[in-house]
Amino acid sequence: MKQLINVPETVVADALRGMAVAHPELTVDVENRVVVRGDAPVLGKVGLVSGGGSGHEPLHGSFVGHGMLDAACPGEVFTSPVPDQMVRAAAAVDSGAGVLFVVKNYTGDVLNFDMAAELAQDEGIRVAKVLVQDDVAVTDSLFTAGRRGTGGTLFVEKMAGAAAQEGAPLERVEGVARRVAESSRSFGVALSPCTTPAKGSPTFDLPAGELELGVGIHGEPGRERRAMMTSGEIADFTVDAVLEDLPPDGPVIALVNGMGGTPLLELYGFAAEVHRVLGERGVPVTRTLVGNYVTSLDMAGASVTLCRVDEELLRLWDAPVRTAGLRWAA
Amino acid sequence: MKQLINVPETVVADALRGMAVAHPELTVDVENRVVVRGDAPVLGKVGLVSGGGSGHEPLHGSFVGHGMLDAACPGEVFTSPVPDQMVRAAAAVDSGAGVLFVVKNYTGDVLNFDMAAELAQDEGIRVAKVLVQDDVAVTDSLFTAGRRGTGGTLFVEKMAGAAAQEGAPLERVEGVARRVAESSRSFGVALSPCTTPAKGSPTFDLPAGELELGVGIHGEPGRERRAMMTSGEIADFTVDAVLEDLPPDGPVIALVNGMGGTPLLELYGFAAEVHRVLGERGVPVTRTLVGNYVTSLDMAGASVTLCRVDEELLRLWDAPVRTAGLRWAA
Repeated sequence: MKQLINVPETVVADALRGMAVAHPELTVDVENRVVVRGDAPVLGKVGLVSGGGSGHEPLHGSFVGHGMLDAACPGEVFTSPVPDQMVRAAAAVDSGAGVLFVVKNYTGDVLNFDMAAELAQDEGIRVAKVLVQDDVAVTDSLFTAGRRGTGGTLFVEKMAGAAAQEGAPLERVEGVARRVAESSRSFGVALSPCTTPAKGSPTFDLPAGELELGVGIHGEPGRERRAMMTSGEIADFTVDAVLEDLPPDGPVIALVNGMGGTPLLELYGFAAEVHRVLGERGVPVTRTLVGNYVTSLDMAGASVTLCRVDEELLRLWDAPVRTAGLRWAA
Repeated sequence: MKQLINVPETVVADALRGMAVAHPELTVDVENRVVVRGDAPVLGKVGLVSGGGSGHEPLHGSFVGHGMLDAACPGEVFTSPVPDQMVRAAAAVDSGAGVLFVVKNYTGDVLNFDMAAELAQDEGIRVAKVLVQDDVAVTDSLFTAGRRGTGGTLFVEKMAGAAAQEGAPLERVEGVARRVAESSRSFGVALSPCTTPAKGSPTFDLPAGELELGVGIHGEPGRERRAMMTSGEIADFTVDAVLEDLPPDGPVIALVNGMGGTPLLELYGFAAEVHRVLGERGVPVTRTLVGNYVTSLDMAGASVTLCRVDEELLRLWDAPVRTAGLRWAA
């Protein structure tokens, strides 16, 4: 697999240099690998910080901005960032109102954010944490004890970000984040593996006529492999897997997410099938977001995340957001 | 190559069904394949209409909305839409102020938009046309006499769309579009071929260790094939190819565009290299847009489009836009 890179060793730093030139409204610390809102710290505002391995862009760096994250810490590709990055990020965004760490459930991320929280608290920063573990495909996987954190992260960052932007105190921002995390479930499929810069070849084998049902965002194994299915069949399987775990007792927001290598043309067709299944199951969909948001480099495939929303969460979803990767006005 | 589709025959209709459910603010005529702003026709406003073969998403359908296109006509994958679609689109968006067709320079598109313009004029609609032919790689190619239209289309649709949104008359909207088209130049490279749904296998061969310099957005041949290059070397070649044709006598907006299959992580790294080269050549970059905007299905690769801007064009670029694929507030 050919890649548009210089050398594998500088891929993350190169991307950060690109973010810096493309987004002058951000403060990008290339050396220390921290992306911060240019106007941070915002007086009286809770700081939202997330991070994780690179390779899932636009998550997290492109979600830094008004109404979403205050800072993001990118690790190497598919590798946790280190506590030092997280502490720097917390210090950069804390205005005295405290900081919330949004943590995807991967062992390295969890350990390092835990350590960072202790270090930041030692420096006098109030820190709360929320763990995102929305992937219903498997419990305990490569890199994870329990369930993996995937597409639900976008919902947590958007809605908790909106609450923080409104000036909610730390306890409430944390409460929103926790509620969104508990209301979100995901399931993904892979049609092809991805290729990391360091390896330069596919990270796993997927035979020509098969797909992986329940794949993780690093290509971790899912529930099973089957002979290739149609978009409609994949939507049936995927939505039912999510609904089995998230009983449909109210309206949902649907994220129809591409893994990176699947064309938008196909994703929109898949979104139509996802809506068809949700309609057949009697689940009202209030908002639908279609695109590549939580990716696995060049992997072909898609995931569906459903987030059950009440009036407050829907209002927080609709609130204005201005980031490189997600933006809308009120 | 596996694809997230039902059957090749319904790919475009399926995607339009997906657009309809995800974007209730649009009027999507799935049967007749026309995507229209939900509030069209807007009284006194010039209607902007574009279209072309599918497979380049988000172009054009996802650029329909406030401040950009009023309607888009998607053809089959890599196949021109038919005049009937264009006439329907023109009729749907004309408020009496006239309609501007934005046409990428491919033989089928040009012929069909010409015919549609005549038919629409017969129905009493004033129609102007602007041809986008920004790709400096080659003249005369598969599907094209003269230069191909590629990334420059985004600039034309955005800036002419802003002028139309402001209420400019047809002659001025056409003038803006023509000026943007004349001020934009592109050059693209492919690291891998793309796979159309109908064919189900790569549309061209590209040996393991080579890239195609100057590739078209349907995988048409470019200038030459070379042994794989680094991101920095590709940026040198690409930017110089553009600048050779667009002497740098003022500030530019840079579009660093992915062909669909290249991860955003790599695109941002490439954007850093593009900025480095522009800096070395003394060209000031006022705005930079990085992402997958004018794509070739799942092709890996990227293109660079530079648009030379004066104060007026920069103001039109910065004007608010609310579409599925491009959106920002003032």
